[in-house]
Amino acid sequence: MHILITGAAGMVGRKITEHLLKNRRIRGRDVTKLTLHDVVAPDAQPTDAISILPVAGDISDRTVIDRLVSEKPDIIIHLAAIVSGEAEADFDKGYAVNLDGTRHIFEAVRAQNYKPRVINASSIAVFGTPFPEPIPDEFHLTPLTSYGTQKAIGELLLNDYTRRGFFDGISLRLPTICVRPGKPNKAASGFFSNIIREPLKGEEAVLPVAETVRHWHASPRAAVGFFLHAAEMDLSAVGPRRNLTMPGVPATIGEQIDALRKVAGEKAAKLIRREPDPVIQKIVAGWPTQFEAKRARELGFKADESFEAIVRAHIDDEHGGRAPVMG
Amino acid sequence: MHILITGAAGMVGRKITEHLLKNRRIRGRDVTKLTLHDVVAPDAQPTDAISILPVAGDISDRTVIDRLVSEKPDIIIHLAAIVSGEAEADFDKGYAVNLDGTRHIFEAVRAQNYKPRVINASSIAVFGTPFPEPIPDEFHLTPLTSYGTQKAIGELLLNDYTRRGFFDGISLRLPTICVRPGKPNKAASGFFSNIIREPLKGEEAVLPVAETVRHWHASPRAAVGFFLHAAEMDLSAVGPRRNLTMPGVPATIGEQIDALRKVAGEKAAKLIRREPDPVIQKIVAGWPTQFEAKRARELGFKADESFEAIVRAHIDDEHGGRAPVMG
Repeated sequence: MHILITGAAGMVGRKITEHLLKNRRIRGRDVTKLTLHDVVAPDAQPTDAISILPVAGDISDRTVIDRLVSEKPDIIIHLAAIVSGEAEADFDKGYAVNLDGTRHIFEAVRAQNYKPRVINASSIAVFGTPFPEPIPDEFHLTPLTSYGTQKAIGELLLNDYTRRGFFDGISLRLPTICVRPGKPNKAASGFFSNIIREPLKGEEAVLPVAETVRHWHASPRAAVGFFLHAAEMDLSAVGPRRNLTMPGVPATIGEQIDALRKVAGEKAAKLIRREPDPVIQKIVAGWPTQFEAKRARELGFKADESFEAIVRAHIDDEHGGRAPVMG
Repeated sequence: MHILITGAAGMVGRKITEHLLKNRRIRGRDVTKLTLHDVVAPDAQPTDAISILPVAGDISDRTVIDRLVSEKPDIIIHLAAIVSGEAEADFDKGYAVNLDGTRHIFEAVRAQNYKPRVINASSIAVFGTPFPEPIPDEFHLTPLTSYGTQKAIGELLLNDYTRRGFFDGISLRLPTICVRPGKPNKAASGFFSNIIREPLKGEEAVLPVAETVRHWHASPRAAVGFFLHAAEMDLSAVGPRRNLTMPGVPATIGEQIDALRKVAGEKAAKLIRREPDPVIQKIVAGWPTQFEAKRARELGFKADESFEAIVRAHIDDEHGGRAPVMG
């Protein structure tokens, strides 16, 4: 089985790649080849069982896409995207990559006239305030960013291409990934991860919002699990509505800090410095806080068990089970 | 004031044009010019007060669009589209006209860097079964046709371009237009109009579905009223969600026939021939039957008063107040 991953050099892409190289089977078949695309060529190493074709290129360039799809990969995991902040700052680039790039992939698949499985990364950014809490599966999409708009359009296209029989598609609306490994970044949502990751390393983290702020989280491990489940499952069970809100853990900042304290002690919790930021507070006030995600749960997609489980998964995956600051 | 209408040779486009040529004022200003676009040049005649620029061209061609927008029309009424059946039969053409054409218009406006009003024709085809009845304003869009998908994408784009300040936009999800003047056509929805229009002329009409089938109707007169209201109103009152389901009249086929009988007598009603068609029955079973349309009503959009009023409007507008078969 040949699997293509776009945006494979990103955090989720690397973790899916690692998993596939280790576990090597999907739907009862051996994975034999990975085509790994990103703007810079991903650096995963082939094994005796699995060859790797790294491809560097811009997905807004149809010739890049035609090359990616020309060998008819059995499963396409489409992660490549310009992130929210950049899509807002550069209107043309956001549409070129997030809309045209996605459409190029779908069109290239249609042109090849085979029917692979296409697993598309969407986002809870397709929702915009005001909304009920939790948001039910049948609530309309009212994105308040260009990124969210582009993801919502990708969902509509995926559904139509699936309905027409050009491929067998599914879109996963990912929760905010927490704890995101690596360095603190300037994304408005960065603090959700920073306040867990940094204290576990003995570093200070800034909290710009109130402890009452609630948000919808999935660990990197859960996110990888969503994609693997989407690769394994019987997609006909999904029915004609192929765009699913993934289950997550709804936690307030206070609950996040309690979980950190429980796992790593007061010493870790004390490394969180309150520094209210009205700009970030305003942005975050427009974000969804929780979802029903009933359909996805019924279809077997699994959230982390609790925010504490999210903290423990981070320590397992990034610190080999024991963080520098613990207990 | 200069108004551009795309798809101006269609039924709604012609009726809006007629209205503007007669009434000549929008938002307290004189209408002085109409640019009328369609695949064949619309044939409206200029008046002393209003000049007309007819433009023939394919809106999937960006150069056509740039020409349409180059004189910076104050209001753009975007009606041009490939209809549902054709968009389903010709996938490429449907996307080229209904998606790319719409995007070309929005992009051409952005490139001109002025902020006109853009009034976009959408459709209840953005909804697909199953749904609650009536469908509330916050129900998600799950189109089951490529046409509905393209209209839903146009709505998302319109909302984002409006949010970004490139234009001031509004999309109107039109009910099924009934009674549609002209000859019976092969559209699956044609019978809703045929069973009223043909008997009023003394001609037989075929009814392929049961009398219990309910649908959502607006007269051509009401549809024109929606566009004129969208041209007149204060769009800031709409808020950030610019895509509105228009109000309509929910009528069963039985209620349609009762209205025909009341207006034109048993002789007209007897010209309807029951000829059940399982193919059409199946298509129609997937269509929405009624909507809340609460937001649009609150914003001043007005439906016809009843199905009887729809029949009377047809007789007024197409037969000068007296149909061949009446009473």
